[in-house]
Amino acid sequence: MRMYDLIMKKRSGGALSEEEIRTLIDSYTKGEIPDYQMSAFCMAVYFQGMTDEETAVLTDAMANSGDRMDLSEIPGVKVDKHSTGGVGDKTTLIVAPIVAACGCHVAKMSGRGLGHTGGTIDKMESIPGMQTSLTREAFIQAVKDAGLAVTGQSGNMTPADKKLYALRDVTATVESIPLIASSVMSKKLAAGSDCILLDVKTGSGAFMKTVEESAALAEKMVAIGTQNGRRTAALITNMDVPLGNQIGNSLEVEEAVQVLCGQGPQDLTEVCLALAAEMLFLAGKGSRDECLGLARNAISSGEALERLAAMVRCQGGDETYIRDPGKFKRAPFSAEVRASESGYLTRMDTEGIGISAMMLGAGRETKDSGIDYQAGIILKKKTGDQVEAGEVISELFTSQKERLDMAAQHFLESVTIRPSRPLPEKLIYARVTEHGIEYF
Amino acid sequence: MRMYDLIMKKRSGGALSEEEIRTLIDSYTKGEIPDYQMSAFCMAVYFQGMTDEETAVLTDAMANSGDRMDLSEIPGVKVDKHSTGGVGDKTTLIVAPIVAACGCHVAKMSGRGLGHTGGTIDKMESIPGMQTSLTREAFIQAVKDAGLAVTGQSGNMTPADKKLYALRDVTATVESIPLIASSVMSKKLAAGSDCILLDVKTGSGAFMKTVEESAALAEKMVAIGTQNGRRTAALITNMDVPLGNQIGNSLEVEEAVQVLCGQGPQDLTEVCLALAAEMLFLAGKGSRDECLGLARNAISSGEALERLAAMVRCQGGDETYIRDPGKFKRAPFSAEVRASESGYLTRMDTEGIGISAMMLGAGRETKDSGIDYQAGIILKKKTGDQVEAGEVISELFTSQKERLDMAAQHFLESVTIRPSRPLPEKLIYARVTEHGIEYF
Repeated sequence: MRMYDLIMKKRSGGALSEEEIRTLIDSYTKGEIPDYQMSAFCMAVYFQGMTDEETAVLTDAMANSGDRMDLSEIPGVKVDKHSTGGVGDKTTLIVAPIVAACGCHVAKMSGRGLGHTGGTIDKMESIPGMQTSLTREAFIQAVKDAGLAVTGQSGNMTPADKKLYALRDVTATVESIPLIASSVMSKKLAAGSDCILLDVKTGSGAFMKTVEESAALAEKMVAIGTQNGRRTAALITNMDVPLGNQIGNSLEVEEAVQVLCGQGPQDLTEVCLALAAEMLFLAGKGSRDECLGLARNAISSGEALERLAAMVRCQGGDETYIRDPGKFKRAPFSAEVRASESGYLTRMDTEGIGISAMMLGAGRETKDSGIDYQAGIILKKKTGDQVEAGEVISELFTSQKERLDMAAQHFLESVTIRPSRPLPEKLIYARVTEHGIEYF
Repeated sequence: MRMYDLIMKKRSGGALSEEEIRTLIDSYTKGEIPDYQMSAFCMAVYFQGMTDEETAVLTDAMANSGDRMDLSEIPGVKVDKHSTGGVGDKTTLIVAPIVAACGCHVAKMSGRGLGHTGGTIDKMESIPGMQTSLTREAFIQAVKDAGLAVTGQSGNMTPADKKLYALRDVTATVESIPLIASSVMSKKLAAGSDCILLDVKTGSGAFMKTVEESAALAEKMVAIGTQNGRRTAALITNMDVPLGNQIGNSLEVEEAVQVLCGQGPQDLTEVCLALAAEMLFLAGKGSRDECLGLARNAISSGEALERLAAMVRCQGGDETYIRDPGKFKRAPFSAEVRASESGYLTRMDTEGIGISAMMLGAGRETKDSGIDYQAGIILKKKTGDQVEAGEVISELFTSQKERLDMAAQHFLESVTIRPSRPLPEKLIYARVTEHGIEYF
């Protein structure tokens, strides 16, 4: 088997055999296939796609390219979730405690933020003392003790995906549904949970800009999970506006606590309850309605908040920040952004708002950039709200005063004010299961 | 300008600006763009194509990436030709002497054979003493003295094309019309002639299998030549059967001499006269009919044969082999291939026949393979001929006796015998000029 022939086969629209895909990934991981052949292959995949069978095998081959997490010591059903990334997306910090409060275990590996999107690991690190590079033993113990734990990925999990993603990132071959789906799902398979819920964000702040694209990605990921023996589903959720009102690392932990106290913004609360209910349903905790009831109850009883505090404690963090989020300091410099005209806020370019937050220090421009945990944005108005000229629409926070003007300018350019009220948008567009797609 | 953005632009179907293309080629030649990005770019070009403007600039940038041949010392019109390659294609050894006999100068750079196709340089080297790596000075002097010379490409011409072609060759990105066209034409532009005739071979023995593909390639190459100020035209000629009856290096020189003596096979003679007439027409030697008359006269007068002998002499070769081709030794081992049944020879898989010749030693399997100059095939029957079961259809020659059986088997598998006579095929399908395409 020559790599040339595999490129040619894919270029011509053919499907690779299981053996061809496994050899491809194995040889690439070992460095036996040069990057210049792999990047040409990826570009051919971008144009020709992959069948569900090819994608499932590719995912399994990447999941098997390094260590796999063995969660068998943890009793009961293990449930994982993954978000494709957005702005203000602190759902893991809310959903995982709810699900743990309902008797499931969440052993989650998460990533750091890059560009306009945040990462759960960064958010957690805004809590003093929090450890996010747990050994396997410490991770398992934390899940057993708290019911949930979130750690960064360890060194040798899915090395094939790491190598391939780094190549795709510099060769404009990221945006291929089978390659995105196999990258995400290889990490989820290697992470070892029984059930996987995917939150496919859609809109101006998401990787996928349309519901159609999101549906295609969700269907591919659900097919991969199902073919590999995991109970898998996806919700397609709105990322045309930031989720909740706070963007930035400690600001988002604060808001997560508000939701777990029953005092969070309506949009964020509703999305988190839907995600948690879907995870509980996958774990066999009852009908969807029953699961929604369990999730609501986990908040109202205070049990979910206790679980978040327990997780912070088990991972070495200072849980008093969870019990009293007022302890989080605000960044030293702030500015208010005011509406330039009266009308309705009809559109937020959510990627643009994410970039404003990044400019303030809340996110990374490159993988090696540092993070300002207190930097970020508090939204006072969101899409659909009426505003008066001069009214404050957001407040910006940073430790680098000189960044304020640029970030405020960028924020202002990212919002559109028009005379008439926009139509309300759905928070959740659709649910994808192995049985198909159901639009709401 | 980031390479990532150029890949993305092409992936999305955009056209690169002149500056972008020139920087791309310049940076790639200098090693500032890694192969893994360039191969992804080439695959994107495979799927998205390039405009005529992009292709013309790409060609010029590659032509300018190294040395260019300056032919200004040679008086009169310099005419070049290029064949896209086939089996039994010895036309340069016939056409260049005819054109030189008619008062034009042919300063041609040529390549070696690879795979099933032969190369003019290899054929010339079957003549004892023949030098094919001329210095620039010796090359110019030979053209002045003999009216024609053919040399291998010197070290630093079109380095961008060399590097890019080597990459395309291992990444399944060769078969892209703009990339093929720019590769061929960059070398022709750098070689410095005023007029360029392209012989685009079409059919089972050619790179292009259909007239439509050939027409697309020819139109692109003619557009490039014209946009770069050269008088350029193309003939689309038949390569569904080998050209002439002899395949292999010294066997082809022999047959070229037969044509120049007026005793060559009809198909080869007709194609060579058409190519020569078209070159003379490009050089302004008269109407197409007049040019055809000049070409015929160059053969019947013996002047073309004298020019071939003069070229051999000027390049250090033994011209007595031209005056008496019987001096070429036959390879020591031979075998006859006989028809397995009676009927008509309805099809020759000409690439298969080229591969038989390669197996015998006439061609190279890899760039580093040696050549057996006497090895090859003499065809006794060609497509359209009637054959009896057991009748000899070809004779194979080699210095490696153990190769005979395999090559004979391969040859036999490459010919089809059927009860009814096939329809005759055209020798020349079309002419492409800057004014458009004219089918015959």
